[in-house]
Amino acid sequence: MKKIRISKAFTLMESGPVVLVTTHDGKNNNIMTLSWTMVVDFTPRFAFTTGPWNYSFAALKKTRECVIAIPTVDLLDKVVGVGTCSGADTDKFEKFRLTPVKAKHVKAPLVKECLANIECEVVDIIGKHNIVVLQCLAAYVDTTRKEKRTVHAVGDGTFIVDGRRLDRKKMMESKLPAGL
Amino acid sequence: MKKIRISKAFTLMESGPVVLVTTHDGKNNNIMTLSWTMVVDFTPRFAFTTGPWNYSFAALKKTRECVIAIPTVDLLDKVVGVGTCSGADTDKFEKFRLTPVKAKHVKAPLVKECLANIECEVVDIIGKHNIVVLQCLAAYVDTTRKEKRTVHAVGDGTFIVDGRRLDRKKMMESKLPAGL
Repeated sequence: MKKIRISKAFTLMESGPVVLVTTHDGKNNNIMTLSWTMVVDFTPRFAFTTGPWNYSFAALKKTRECVIAIPTVDLLDKVVGVGTCSGADTDKFEKFRLTPVKAKHVKAPLVKECLANIECEVVDIIGKHNIVVLQCLAAYVDTTRKEKRTVHAVGDGTFIVDGRRLDRKKMMESKLPAGL
Repeated sequence: MKKIRISKAFTLMESGPVVLVTTHDGKNNNIMTLSWTMVVDFTPRFAFTTGPWNYSFAALKKTRECVIAIPTVDLLDKVVGVGTCSGADTDKFEKFRLTPVKAKHVKAPLVKECLANIECEVVDIIGKHNIVVLQCLAAYVDTTRKEKRTVHAVGDGTFIVDGRRLDRKKMMESKLPAGL
């Protein structure tokens, strides 16, 4: 897991992959699956939608920190499994054989099996809309991994795998932030 | 352009495609490119990040309505073009040969060339985070279109095209909302 420049971290999230979000409630690690996420600024900040219906929300609210882990297509069944049971009665790291790795800035763990991990601090919880705003503190990518394709939930139980990549860097030159 | 059930409309956005957002300021149509978007609830509500740095934001704030149009990969150069010039000095519908079509609930136009269009009302502007929350009023899909692959911005000037689709409906049965 190699640390990347924080100015690049928004590019891990902008395409809208399904993510895993880990928390640590002071006693146990937990992990949930989310696909309602977005970038909010280049520093970067992210937002996601969650609320009391997710068991992880209590830990998120209490500790105000989490890790966003980005899985690839080979992990899809684990991702769906994590998303369809609850940390209230399941040790999901154990059940899905995911490996928690100590983070640097937060007590929530990184997920060893994922392509990327982002340590985050909660900067705001907009209760009215169930939107959580997060500040990225550090980001890591597993550069040794061959499988780099993420998956995008459609919402109907199907998932779109990353296909080919098209380059429009030249056309977009004027719009790309410095430090990429 | 065929109207779809509103309970299905969140599935147009959940995978995180690059979108076009149209506005009408009382005089002119305008259109911008956004990729910082997410679903907020199943009704559905959406959120996106924008602010005064986008010319469209003034019309969005004033009229409190817009259309989210979802383009496919064949439109990528128009999408990047729209995203790299400003409505302040350009009629972008004309410049990029996009066709405005009258919407039903809002004055902002649908975009004929796009795969899907979603009429939206602004329900909240969270100025502190530059997050706009929208209520979907109606949604349409062009069912005659062959090209259905959307594109996902990475943020570095490259775009990921939709690849294959994997079905996990059975595993996710307990989590899928009614009316899909």
